[in-house]
Amino acid sequence: MTKKWVYLFSEVNDTLKYVGDDWDALKGLLGGKGANLAEMWRIGVSVPHGFTVTTEACNSFLAAGGIFPENMWEQEQEALKKIEEVTGKKFGGPENPLLVSCRSGAKYSMPGMMDTVLNIGLNDDTARDMAALTGDERFVYDSYRRLIQMFGSVVMGVQDEVFEEVITKTRIKAGVKNDSELSAENWKAVTREFKSLFRRHTSRDFPTDPYEQLQLATEAVFKSWNGKRAIDYRNAAGISHNLGTAVSVVTMVFGNMGDDSATGVAMTRNGSTGKRQIEGDYLINAQGEDVVAGIRMTKDIAVLKEDMPAAYKELEDIAKRLEKHYREMQDMEFTIEKGKLWMLQTRDGKRTAQAAVRIAIEMSEEGLISREEAVMRVKPEQVDFFLHPQFDRQAIRVAKAAGHLLSTGLNVSPGAAVGVVALDADVAETWAKKDGKSVIMVRTETKPDDVHGMLASKGIVTSRGGRTSHAALVARQFGKPAVVGVSALDIDINKRLIRVKGITIKEGEVISIDGTTGEVFHGKLTTMVPDIRDPWLIKLLSWADEFKKLGVWANADYPVDAQRARDYGAEGIGLCRTEHMFFETNRLPFVQKMILTDLPIERQEALTALLPFQREDFIGLFRVMNGLPVIIRLLDPPLHEFLPNHIDLIRDVADLKIRLNHAPTMAAINELIDEIRKKERILRRSETLLESNPMLGRRGVRLSLYIPELTLMQVRAIFEAACIVAKEGIDVHPKIMIPLTSHPNELKIQKQVIEEKAKKVMNENGIEIDYKFGTMIELPRAALIADQLAQYVSFASFGTNDLTQTTYGISRDDAESGFLIEYMAKGILPENPFATIDKHGVGELMRIAVEKGKKIKEHLEFGICGEHGGDPQSIMICHELGLNYVSCSPFRVPIARLAAAHAALNDKMNDKMKK
Amino acid sequence: MTKKWVYLFSEVNDTLKYVGDDWDALKGLLGGKGANLAEMWRIGVSVPHGFTVTTEACNSFLAAGGIFPENMWEQEQEALKKIEEVTGKKFGGPENPLLVSCRSGAKYSMPGMMDTVLNIGLNDDTARDMAALTGDERFVYDSYRRLIQMFGSVVMGVQDEVFEEVITKTRIKAGVKNDSELSAENWKAVTREFKSLFRRHTSRDFPTDPYEQLQLATEAVFKSWNGKRAIDYRNAAGISHNLGTAVSVVTMVFGNMGDDSATGVAMTRNGSTGKRQIEGDYLINAQGEDVVAGIRMTKDIAVLKEDMPAAYKELEDIAKRLEKHYREMQDMEFTIEKGKLWMLQTRDGKRTAQAAVRIAIEMSEEGLISREEAVMRVKPEQVDFFLHPQFDRQAIRVAKAAGHLLSTGLNVSPGAAVGVVALDADVAETWAKKDGKSVIMVRTETKPDDVHGMLASKGIVTSRGGRTSHAALVARQFGKPAVVGVSALDIDINKRLIRVKGITIKEGEVISIDGTTGEVFHGKLTTMVPDIRDPWLIKLLSWADEFKKLGVWANADYPVDAQRARDYGAEGIGLCRTEHMFFETNRLPFVQKMILTDLPIERQEALTALLPFQREDFIGLFRVMNGLPVIIRLLDPPLHEFLPNHIDLIRDVADLKIRLNHAPTMAAINELIDEIRKKERILRRSETLLESNPMLGRRGVRLSLYIPELTLMQVRAIFEAACIVAKEGIDVHPKIMIPLTSHPNELKIQKQVIEEKAKKVMNENGIEIDYKFGTMIELPRAALIADQLAQYVSFASFGTNDLTQTTYGISRDDAESGFLIEYMAKGILPENPFATIDKHGVGELMRIAVEKGKKIKEHLEFGICGEHGGDPQSIMICHELGLNYVSCSPFRVPIARLAAAHAALNDKMNDKMKK
Repeated sequence: MTKKWVYLFSEVNDTLKYVGDDWDALKGLLGGKGANLAEMWRIGVSVPHGFTVTTEACNSFLAAGGIFPENMWEQEQEALKKIEEVTGKKFGGPENPLLVSCRSGAKYSMPGMMDTVLNIGLNDDTARDMAALTGDERFVYDSYRRLIQMFGSVVMGVQDEVFEEVITKTRIKAGVKNDSELSAENWKAVTREFKSLFRRHTSRDFPTDPYEQLQLATEAVFKSWNGKRAIDYRNAAGISHNLGTAVSVVTMVFGNMGDDSATGVAMTRNGSTGKRQIEGDYLINAQGEDVVAGIRMTKDIAVLKEDMPAAYKELEDIAKRLEKHYREMQDMEFTIEKGKLWMLQTRDGKRTAQAAVRIAIEMSEEGLISREEAVMRVKPEQVDFFLHPQFDRQAIRVAKAAGHLLSTGLNVSPGAAVGVVALDADVAETWAKKDGKSVIMVRTETKPDDVHGMLASKGIVTSRGGRTSHAALVARQFGKPAVVGVSALDIDINKRLIRVKGITIKEGEVISIDGTTGEVFHGKLTTMVPDIRDPWLIKLLSWADEFKKLGVWANADYPVDAQRARDYGAEGIGLCRTEHMFFETNRLPFVQKMILTDLPIERQEALTALLPFQREDFIGLFRVMNGLPVIIRLLDPPLHEFLPNHIDLIRDVADLKIRLNHAPTMAAINELIDEIRKKERILRRSETLLESNPMLGRRGVRLSLYIPELTLMQVRAIFEAACIVAKEGIDVHPKIMIPLTSHPNELKIQKQVIEEKAKKVMNENGIEIDYKFGTMIELPRAALIADQLAQYVSFASFGTNDLTQTTYGISRDDAESGFLIEYMAKGILPENPFATIDKHGVGELMRIAVEKGKKIKEHLEFGICGEHGGDPQSIMICHELGLNYVSCSPFRVPIARLAAAHAALNDKMNDKMKK
Repeated sequence: MTKKWVYLFSEVNDTLKYVGDDWDALKGLLGGKGANLAEMWRIGVSVPHGFTVTTEACNSFLAAGGIFPENMWEQEQEALKKIEEVTGKKFGGPENPLLVSCRSGAKYSMPGMMDTVLNIGLNDDTARDMAALTGDERFVYDSYRRLIQMFGSVVMGVQDEVFEEVITKTRIKAGVKNDSELSAENWKAVTREFKSLFRRHTSRDFPTDPYEQLQLATEAVFKSWNGKRAIDYRNAAGISHNLGTAVSVVTMVFGNMGDDSATGVAMTRNGSTGKRQIEGDYLINAQGEDVVAGIRMTKDIAVLKEDMPAAYKELEDIAKRLEKHYREMQDMEFTIEKGKLWMLQTRDGKRTAQAAVRIAIEMSEEGLISREEAVMRVKPEQVDFFLHPQFDRQAIRVAKAAGHLLSTGLNVSPGAAVGVVALDADVAETWAKKDGKSVIMVRTETKPDDVHGMLASKGIVTSRGGRTSHAALVARQFGKPAVVGVSALDIDINKRLIRVKGITIKEGEVISIDGTTGEVFHGKLTTMVPDIRDPWLIKLLSWADEFKKLGVWANADYPVDAQRARDYGAEGIGLCRTEHMFFETNRLPFVQKMILTDLPIERQEALTALLPFQREDFIGLFRVMNGLPVIIRLLDPPLHEFLPNHIDLIRDVADLKIRLNHAPTMAAINELIDEIRKKERILRRSETLLESNPMLGRRGVRLSLYIPELTLMQVRAIFEAACIVAKEGIDVHPKIMIPLTSHPNELKIQKQVIEEKAKKVMNENGIEIDYKFGTMIELPRAALIADQLAQYVSFASFGTNDLTQTTYGISRDDAESGFLIEYMAKGILPENPFATIDKHGVGELMRIAVEKGKKIKEHLEFGICGEHGGDPQSIMICHELGLNYVSCSPFRVPIARLAAAHAALNDKMNDKMKK
C-alpha cells in the first residue's frame, strides 16, 4: 500500500484516526493552518473545499534532494479531482474555472517566513472565463497579474522589484496615485508585461497549465522550509528543523463579487479588555488583503449585523461554536461570496494580559473551562504586564491599518516602549541623560560596550541575533522591552538612518516597539498601564490560591514594602535584610564609627546609638505584618561595604597630596593635612578589611562571631520591638535567621547567644514572644550537611543567589557584565542561572538539603528567599522539591501565587497521566 | 559480693579475664604503668611485688566527693599483707621494714601532670632499722627527708620552696655546693627540720603510721586527677576527663645497696638509628633519680656486661622477651639490688623517624611482625622527618642529663629548631630579616598581629593554648616547628626575659625546641638532617607499594620537579600548571602584550613568541617522564594576575604626578609624562579585567573561551613537544586537562577545538600521539553533574583547593590570615579544611561525583591534585572513595605512598573485623 501524502479536509475523521486522535500530532502532520481548516470542516463550519499535502511529504521531498515522494503528485491530482466533483468547478476551466491557493503551514506559526501562491488556475483562457462569470475584468486581471508576480518571485526566484517597477510606471503613465485607481485595461497591460518579464528572467514562458502551476508551487513551498529566512527564524525561535511544512490547497472564494460579498477578520472576544463580544473589521465587495492593507476604511463588525443580518447571525453562531469547540477565544478570517459565508482561518486569538485574565475567568464562569484550566490559561509572566505599560490594542490595529507596522522580530523582552531612534550607545546615553529623551536604541547587534546605552534606553531593537543574543539577555536582565533579529531592518550608520520596507527613518525619529509581540512600529503608539488591582486579576489569583501548595512570602526591609507585599497577598516576610537599614544616611556614621574604632567602649557606644533605629524598623514591620511571620536575617555583608570605596580613598588621598603642593596659605595646608590624615585613617582600616574575594570572606555569621556585640544589639532591637507591639495587641512572630552558615557549630553558638539575649529582653518586658531560630542555606556545604544543621533550627531558607555563585563558581557582580552574558550568547549556558534555578546543580543541592534535613526533623520548614523566588520556572522546581514557601519581591508576589498554582496543577495533571 | 578495687600484680591473669582479655581495657583499668607492671609479672619478668588501685576506684572516689569506695581501703591493706607475706618484709617494721612507692598512672601518659610519693613506710623507727640493715645512714635519712618533703607538698599542699630553702641553708652552712656532698648528719638535721616545718604548715605532726601515710598518699593521687594542671593538659591534649587515674603501690628496691647494686635505663634498640642493640646508661650503687639527674657520670650499658655479667645477661634476655611479647621496641627502667635484677617499668620506646623505619623493617625480617604491620608501624607523617632537621638522640640525652630540658609542652608542629629567643613579632622579624639570625619566637599566646613574626621565625613557643590555638594552627600551616601550652614558662615582657624552673633566659639567648616531642631545651642542640634516600625507607616504601591501591602521582611544573617526583616514586604527573611558566621574567612581557593589545594580530604575535618557550617546557617534562602519563592543565588564573597590581599602579601614577610637580627640567617632565601614559594604559586595561571576586571570575576554561588563540597555542606546544620527543624514542602520554569546568558544553567545545588542533600538529609531524582529554572537578556543580561531564572525558581530577573554597564559601587567600584561624582557635571548625579534606562537605561532593561519573563511564579515571593529595588523612578519604590516584608535591610522594598503603591495610583490617 502506498503511503497517504494528501488529506482532503473532508477526510478529517480518517486523518484524526491516523494520528491517534491527537490534536498536536494532527498539527504536526497538516501544519497549524491545515489542521484548523480540517477541524472546522469536521465540526461543520463552512470552509472552502481543499486538501493538505503533509509535512511528511515535505520531509521526504527534502530528504530526497527535491523529488516528490512516490505517488504524492498523483494523490494531489486525485484530491483536486474530488474537489472538482463536489464544487462543480473545473481546474483549468474552461467554464466556471476552479482557482486555488497554495499555502505553507508548519506545526508552529512562523509568520511571513515561508511562501504562498494565490489564484493558481488562472491563465489566458480561465481569466477570460472568470471575467465572463464575474463580469469584473478589472478584478480578474488584477488577480492574474498577482499570480504571475507571486509565481515569478516565490516559485522562480525573480526579484519582486522587477514586477513592482512595471506597476509604478503604469501608475505614472495613468496619472494615478494608488493601485486601486488603475483600470481593467491597465491590469491587462500589466499582465502582458509581466508575462514577458517572466520569460526574460526565467528563460521560459509562464506556465499556462494549471497543474504545472500547482506542481511548481507545491515544490516552492516545500523548498521554502529550508530558505535562509526560515532557518534563521527557527534557530532564533528554537523551533526544530526537522518538522517540515505542509501545503494547504484551498478553493479560492471571493469577497469582491458584488455588494452581497464581503471579507473580514473577527475575534470572538475583545483582545484588549477580554469583554465578551465579537470584535473585528470588514469590507463589502473586497478581498482579504484590502482589510489589512489599510487602503480602504474598514467597517466595525457590529455594522455587518445591519448590512448582512443572515451572514452576521451565522458568523455569531460559528464564533460560539468555535469557542465551544476550541474552548478558547478565536481569531477568525472570513469571506462572504454572494451572501454565502466562508471561514478561511481560525486560530487562538492574541490578547493583552488583562484580556487573558478576564477571558479565562469568564470562560470558566460560562462553563467552557474548569477553574483549574482558567488558572492555567494565564501565564505567570502575564501578571507582570499588569505592572508594565502595554500598547492599546486599538492603537495597534490603527497603526497596522495605517501601514505603520515596520516589521516583526523576535519578542525577547516583554513590554511596550516608545522613543526616538538612537543608533549607538553614546548617543542613546547622551539623549537620555542630558536631554531627558525617551530613547530606543537600534543596533545591528549589541556588545558589552553597548551596555551603558542599553541601560539608558527605554527599549532595544537589533537587526540580528536570537533569543540568547547579547541584546536579548541584557534586555531581559534589566527589564527593558526588546525586539531582536528584525532582519528587514537595514541600518546605515554613516547616514545615521534605518531603512525598512522602503521607509527611511532618521536617527531621532520616533518609533514604538512591543517586546511582547516583537512588533516594531513607525511613530508613537499610545500606551496604557494596567492596574494590578484589576478585579478580574484579583479573582484569578484567589482561585490560584485554592490550588497552590507553596506559601508565597515576600522579601521586604521596610514597612512600606511589607504593606505592598500584604496587599499583593504575601503570607509572611521571608527575608528582611537588616543591612539595608545600616546604609541609611542618618545611621551610616554610627556604623562606620563601630567599624573604625579599636576601643570596645566606642564600639558599644556606636551600637547603642544604632539600637533605637533598628528597633523602630522592626516595630514598623511587625505592625504591618500583624499575625504573619517575619524572618529577620542578621547582618550579612562584609564590613568594608560600609566604608568608602578603597580605591576611591587611595585616589582621594593622592589628589589631596597634589593639592597640598599648590595650597596657597598655611591655613589651607593645615586643612588639607587634617583631611589627608582623616582619610588615611579610614584607608588603613579599610585595608585591614580588604579581601581578595569578599564574597567568600568575613560575612554573614562570620561577622557575628567577629563582632558579637553587633548580634546582641540586633537581637535586642528585635525583641524590644516585638514586646512593644505585643503590648499594642499586635500578633507578632519574629523568626531570626543566620546567614552564610557552613558548620553546625556556628548555629550552636549563635543559638545560645540569641536565646539568652531574647530571654533577657522578654524578662525585662514581662512578655513572652513566639519566635523561631533558623538558618540560610546559601553555601554548598550547608546543603550537604543539612542534617547536621537541622538539629539547631526550626526553619531553613535557601539563599539561591549565593548558592548559585558558589555552586557555579560565578561571581554575580562580575559575571553579568562579563563572561556569563558571553556564555549565554554563545549557547554554552542554556539559561541564566541567576534568573532561573540551575536544576542540575543548585537544584540538586536543594534536593539533598531537603532530604537530609527532613530525615532529622520531619517538620523542618524550608523556603527560598533568593531572587529565584519570583521566577515561575524556579517556583516549579521549589514546588517539586517540597519547599514550604517561596519569598520574592513584593511586586512579584502575584506572579508567584499564580506560578505556585501552576506548579501544583501540573503536578496533578502529571499524576493523572501516570494513572 | 563487693567490687574488686585492688589488683595484685600477681593476680594479673584474673585481671585480664575481668577486662575480657583486652589490653586496652587493662590499661584503662590499671593505667598504663600498672598494666605494664602486671603484664611483665605475667610473662615472668622479675618485677617488685605490688598492686594497683583501679581507675574505677578513683572515679568512684571523685564522684563521692572524696570518699574511698566501700571496702577499697580494706582491699589495699589486704594486698599489702600479701606482699608482706611473700617478701618477708613488714610494713612499718620493726626489722626489715617494707617501703613502697605510690604512683599515679592514667590510661594515656600525662607526663609530670599528676603526683607520686616515694619511700612510704619510713618513720623514725623504720629509718633506724633501715640504717642498721643497709649500713648507710646517709642514704636512709636522705630518703626519709624526701618522703616528708613529697608528702608535705603532694599530699598536704605545703609549698615546695619552704623545704628547698632548708636544704639551701644547710648547704651554705656545710660549705658545700651539691646535695651529694651533704653528710648523713646533715640529712638527719634536715629531716628533723622538715618535720617541724611540716607541723608548722599543716598544724599536725608528720604521720608516723605507714598505713596513714599510704592512705593519704592514695587520696592525694586520686585528687591530683582533677588538679588544674592535669585538667589543662587533658583539655589541650584532647584526653577525656572521665578516665580517672590508677594508683600503683610498688615495693621499693634499691640500687644503692653497695657495689653489687645498680640502676639504669635501657632501650632494646637504638632510638636514633634503629640499630638492633641494647642501648642505655647505668650507675653502680645509685638510685634511679641519679641516672636522670646527671649528677654523676653514667656508664654505657655495654660496660654492664663486664661489671655484672649475670645481670647483663638477664637484662638481655628480658629485653628479648619483652620485645617478643610486646612486638615493639621497649624502653625499660631497671634496678639491681644486691645482684638481683628488678624491672621497674617498660613501655614502647621513643625513636626518631629513621629508627622507626629501620626497627619496623628489621622486626618484620626477624619474624616478630608481618610486613603489613611493619608498614603500619611507621606513620606517614614520620616520613616527612626525612626531609626536616631533627635533634640527634644522643644530643637530647646529653642535654637532658645536663638538666637543659626546660619543660615539655604540646607537640603541635613537628621538626627541630634552634634560635635566639624573641619575645615579640617585631623583634623576631627584625632579627631574622635584618640581622639574619635564627629566631625562636616565644609568646604567651599568638594573635593575627603576630603572624609576620611567626613567618620570620624558625620555631614558635607559647606558654598557653592547645592543639587548635592560633599559634598551633599557623605554625602547622607554614610548617614551622612549634611547642605550645608550655605552662611552666613565665614570660616577663617588661624585663624581656623568660623564667622556667628557676632558670632565667634573656631575650637573645639560644634555645632549642623539638616540635615532634614538645620539648624545649636551653642552649643549642645539634641537629641532623636525615636522608630521604635512606635504604631502610626505600625498602619500607617498596613494601608499602605492594599494599596500596591508590596510584601516587606528583604535581610538577618543571623538569627538575618531575625528576624529583620520579626519584621519589611518582607514577605520573597529576598536575602541570602551565601558568607558572607564564610568570617567568623572559616570558611575562609577551604575556602582558597579549593581554594589553586590542589587535588580534598583535595578540597572535605575542602568542607566537610564547610558543617555543611552552614547547621547551613540555619537551623537558616529557623526557623526564618517559613512559609515564603527564597531565597538563591549560592556563587557569585570571588575566589580571599577569599585570602589575592594580592598587600599586594607582599609587605609582599618583606618585609620578606628584614628582611631575617638582620635575626640574623639560626633559624630566617629558620623561615623567611618558611614564605616566604608559602606566595609565596598563591601568585602564587592568581596570577592565578587575573583578570583585576573581576566584569566581573569568579563569580556567572561561579564559580559554575568551581567548581561544591561547588554548590553541598551548595545545600546539604540547603536541609539537610530544612529536619531538617521540622522534627521540621517548614514550610520551600527554593528558590535557580543562580547569574550572561547570557545564558539559564547555568540555564539548574545548574537546572539539583541541582534537582538531592535535590532529593538525600530529599530521604535520606524521606521528600519532597517545593522548587523553580530561577535566578538573573543582566546583560543586562539576561534582553534581559529573555524569554529564563523563561523556566527554576519560579522566577527572578533583581540585580540592578550589572545591573547598566554593563548598565552604571560604576564600583561601583571605581566610587563613583571618577568620579561618579564629574559627579553628575558637573550636568552631574542628580542623583546617584546606589541610585535610572536609569529609562531610567536599568529601560528599567527591563521593557524588565518583558515583555519577562511573555510572556513565565505568572506567572513568578519578584523581586528586589539590594540596590534600599529600595529606595522609585526606589520602584515606581518597582511598575510601575509590579514586585511582592522588597527586601531590614531589616531596610528599613518599608520605603519600605510605599513607596509601595504610589506607588499603586499614580497609583490609576493617573487612576482617566485619567477618
